[in-house]
Amino acid sequence: MSQEMTRDATNHDLVARLSARLGPAGVLTQEADMAPYAVDWRRLFPGRPACVVRPASTAEVADAVRLCRAAGAAMVPQGGNTGLAGGAAPDASGTQVVVSLARMNAVRAVDPVGLTLTAEAGCVLGTAQAAAEAAGRLLPVSFAAEGSAMLGGVIATNAGGLNVVRYGMTRGLVLGLEVVLADGTVVDGLRALRKDNAGYDWKQWFIGTEGTLGLVTAAVMRLAARPRHVATALLAVPDPDAALRLFTLAQEELGDCIQAFELISGLSLDLVGRHSTLTRPVEPAPWYVLLEAASSLPALREAAEGMLGTAFERGDALDGVLAESGQQAAGLWALREGITEAEAKEGRGVKHDVSVPITAIPAFLEAAGRALAEGAPGARANAFGHMGDGNIHYNVLAAPDHDGDAINRLVHGVVDRFGGSISAEHGIGQYRVAELLRHRRPEEIALARRIKAALDPDGLLNPGKVLSGQILPR
Amino acid sequence: MSQEMTRDATNHDLVARLSARLGPAGVLTQEADMAPYAVDWRRLFPGRPACVVRPASTAEVADAVRLCRAAGAAMVPQGGNTGLAGGAAPDASGTQVVVSLARMNAVRAVDPVGLTLTAEAGCVLGTAQAAAEAAGRLLPVSFAAEGSAMLGGVIATNAGGLNVVRYGMTRGLVLGLEVVLADGTVVDGLRALRKDNAGYDWKQWFIGTEGTLGLVTAAVMRLAARPRHVATALLAVPDPDAALRLFTLAQEELGDCIQAFELISGLSLDLVGRHSTLTRPVEPAPWYVLLEAASSLPALREAAEGMLGTAFERGDALDGVLAESGQQAAGLWALREGITEAEAKEGRGVKHDVSVPITAIPAFLEAAGRALAEGAPGARANAFGHMGDGNIHYNVLAAPDHDGDAINRLVHGVVDRFGGSISAEHGIGQYRVAELLRHRRPEEIALARRIKAALDPDGLLNPGKVLSGQILPR
Repeated sequence: MSQEMTRDATNHDLVARLSARLGPAGVLTQEADMAPYAVDWRRLFPGRPACVVRPASTAEVADAVRLCRAAGAAMVPQGGNTGLAGGAAPDASGTQVVVSLARMNAVRAVDPVGLTLTAEAGCVLGTAQAAAEAAGRLLPVSFAAEGSAMLGGVIATNAGGLNVVRYGMTRGLVLGLEVVLADGTVVDGLRALRKDNAGYDWKQWFIGTEGTLGLVTAAVMRLAARPRHVATALLAVPDPDAALRLFTLAQEELGDCIQAFELISGLSLDLVGRHSTLTRPVEPAPWYVLLEAASSLPALREAAEGMLGTAFERGDALDGVLAESGQQAAGLWALREGITEAEAKEGRGVKHDVSVPITAIPAFLEAAGRALAEGAPGARANAFGHMGDGNIHYNVLAAPDHDGDAINRLVHGVVDRFGGSISAEHGIGQYRVAELLRHRRPEEIALARRIKAALDPDGLLNPGKVLSGQILPR
Repeated sequence: MSQEMTRDATNHDLVARLSARLGPAGVLTQEADMAPYAVDWRRLFPGRPACVVRPASTAEVADAVRLCRAAGAAMVPQGGNTGLAGGAAPDASGTQVVVSLARMNAVRAVDPVGLTLTAEAGCVLGTAQAAAEAAGRLLPVSFAAEGSAMLGGVIATNAGGLNVVRYGMTRGLVLGLEVVLADGTVVDGLRALRKDNAGYDWKQWFIGTEGTLGLVTAAVMRLAARPRHVATALLAVPDPDAALRLFTLAQEELGDCIQAFELISGLSLDLVGRHSTLTRPVEPAPWYVLLEAASSLPALREAAEGMLGTAFERGDALDGVLAESGQQAAGLWALREGITEAEAKEGRGVKHDVSVPITAIPAFLEAAGRALAEGAPGARANAFGHMGDGNIHYNVLAAPDHDGDAINRLVHGVVDRFGGSISAEHGIGQYRVAELLRHRRPEEIALARRIKAALDPDGLLNPGKVLSGQILPR
C-alpha cells in the first residue's frame, strides 16, 4: 500500500473506534462539518484534520485520547478557536484529530461567598463572566474574544487582556484544574482552595502550555468583588516619558484601584478616525493614555480628578476627559478597541505582541522606531497596548514589498536588547515557534523539552506547537 | 573497608574538592560551625550534614552542584532555615551537603516605576521589604519569620502569610527566576516582565517545590503601590457563620481593599491573656475577627465605619474596635501574633495548617470539633488563621497521653471530607511526606514523580522532602 492508503486505512479504523465510543454526535468527518475547526481564526494556518471529536464528558475525553494514542494519532485540543497564534489548528497532513471541548460547556458551580466558579473547558468565557455577575461577583479576565473564547483555551494560553494590571494573568485566577494526560489518565485537582501547598502544584504545568502537555477539561476560577465605582479617562500626552510619569503618579494616587493603563499612539487614533465614525474627544496629540480605575469606595472620582489636575499642572497631560457616565466610558474604550479593525482596513499589518520592563517602554519605542526607519523605510509603527503590564502591540504598517519576516526580526531584536518577551499574551502556537528558539536561551528550551518528553513521550499532544521538533542555535 | 569508612573517604574527597573551589569561607566542616544548619527551626529533625557549603555566586552554586553530583552526594538547599516542615534540614546520615544561599544576599535592583525588585536567594525577606519601602513601594509578602527567612526559601516554599487575601501567594509575585538544575546547569530567566507567554513558564516548576527540582539563586519580584490609608478592626462575633457573613459584607463594602481577614477562636485569645500581658480591647466572645483594609483613597475609614455599623445592626458583630492609630492597630496585631507563643506556653500543641473552601469554614470547624470530642476526649482546639484564604491553623491542645498521629489523622480526615488541603501554606518538607500520600490522589502523586524523575533523575536534590521514595496506596 502507498503511504497515503496506509494513512487512510489507519484513519478509517480510528474514526470507527471513536464513533463507536462517542456516538455520531461526537465525531465529525465530513469536510464541511470540519471546516470551522480546520483553520485558525486569523486563517493563517489552513489544516485538514483526520476527524473532529466532540466529547461530552471528561470520561469521553479520556477514552478519545486513549484511542488516538493507540492509533498513534496526534491530537489538537480546541476551544473557541479564537487564538491569534494558530495553537488550536491542526496541520494539513490529514492525520491529526481535533479534540473540541465545545460540548463540555457547563458552569458547574458559583460560590459568591467563597469567591469561586467551577466550569468545564468548553464554557464560553462570556457565559462564565455572566454567571459570576448574576451572583454579584466578577470573573476578572476580559478580552476582545470573550464572546467566543472558551475557558479551557483561556487557561491553556494563560490569557491576558484588559485588566491584567489589577488582576494578573489567567494563571493567577486558576485555583483548581482537571486535566487528561497524554495516556488518557484523568487527574482531578478541582479543589476550590485559595491556598494549597500540599505537594507539587502540578496544575501550573498545564496552564499556558497550549495543550502540549495535557488537555484541560474543567477548572475552578477565583472570583473577585465587583467594584462599585469606576473612573475612566482619556488623556492626550506629549510623549511616552510623560505617559510613564503618569503611570507613577497613578500608582501613588490611585494605587491598586488602577485596572487598566493603556498607551495609544497618535497614529492608532488617526487610523480609527479614518476608518470608523468614532471621534476622539480630546485634542490631537502624539500619544494618548486610557486610564481606568475602580473601587468599592466612593472617593474614587475625587481622587481621579485630583490626579488629572496634577498631571495637567506638570504638563504630563495636554488635554483629557474623565468619563461622566458608563456610556461615555464605553465610548473611550470603543476608540481603543477599534484600533485593530482600523489597522486591518488601512492595509497590511505586521503584528508584534511584545513586552519589556515597564520603565523601558519609552526607550524601547524610540529604539524600535529608529530600527524601523533604518531597516524598513516607509513602514509605520501602529503602537498601542497595555503599558501598565509592559505589553505593547507594536504593529507595523508595511507596504507589499516590505519583508515581514525581516520586520519581525528587527522588532524582536530590539525587544531582546531590553530583556523583553516576543510574546506577552498571545502565546507561541505555530506562529512564533521558530522565533522562540532564537529568543530564549538554549537552557530554557532544553528544560521545556525535558518536561515535554516526560509528560508526552510519544509527542502526540498538539505537536509542532510551542516547541518544534528541532533545536536551532540561538 | 567498612561502609562507614567508605563513606568517610568519599566525604573527605568531596569536601576537599568543594574547598578547593569555594575557598575556606565557602565550606564548613566543624560540628560547631555546622550546628545551626543541621536542624530545622522547630528542632523536630536533627540532622548531620557531610558539610555545609556557602557559595557566594551563582557560578559557585553551579560548581558545588556539579561536584556533589559527581560524588553522588545529596544536596539540601537552605535559606533562613525558618520553615515549619523540616524542608531545609539534612538527614542524619552524615552524607548530605547543605547548600546555604546565605552569602548570596544582595538586592540587585529596585525599580519603583516598573514596580520590580531583583534580589539574590540569600537576601533576608525583611531586607528586601525595606529596600522596596525605601523606594516608596511595597513587597507584599509578610509573615512572622520575615526577619530571618530568605527570598530563595520564600519562593521555594511558595510562602503565604498575612496579606494573601489581597496579594496572593508568593508564586504570583515572582516575575523572573534564576535556578541551578540538578546537573549544575544555570537557567537564567531573570526577566522583569509582568506578562510573558513566550513558551513554557518553567519558573513555575521551581516555585513551591521545596528545592527538590532545582536551586533558586535569584529572582525578580513584583512590587505594589503602598496604600496610604489603613483601617484595622477587631470584632467579637457570636460564631463562625457570623464571621462568614462579615466576610461577604466586607467584600461588598470594601472589596479589594481587604488585606487581612483573620478568624480567631475565643480560646486563642484566652491563651494570649493567660500567658502574656496583652489585653483584648473587646468583650469576651466565642470568636473574633481581625480585619484590615487599606487603600490609596481617604474614604477608607468612613467605609470601614459604615461596614461595622451594618455588622452591629445585623448582630454579626457583638463588640468591636476600629484602631485610631498605627499603634492601636499594632496592638490588635500583637494579640493575633501572640497566639503561637501562648499555645507553646500552655503545653503540648498538635499543629495543623489546613485549608478548605472559605464557605465551608463554619461546617469544617463544627465537624472537626465533633470528631475531636469523639476521638480525642479532653483535647481542645486552638483554631485561628487566615479565614479570607480558607486557611485555618487548627492546632490541638493535647494531653501527654493523647496520640498526636491519631489527632493528625482525625483532623485531616475531616479536611478531606470538605475537599481541603492538609498543608495550606507551610508546605510538606519532611513533616507531612507520609500524610501527603494518603491525602492526594495516586494520579497526582504519579504525575509529581514523573516531573521529579525528569528534572532530578539521580534523586540528589533534597531527597526525602515532599515526595518519599515509596508510593503508598491511598
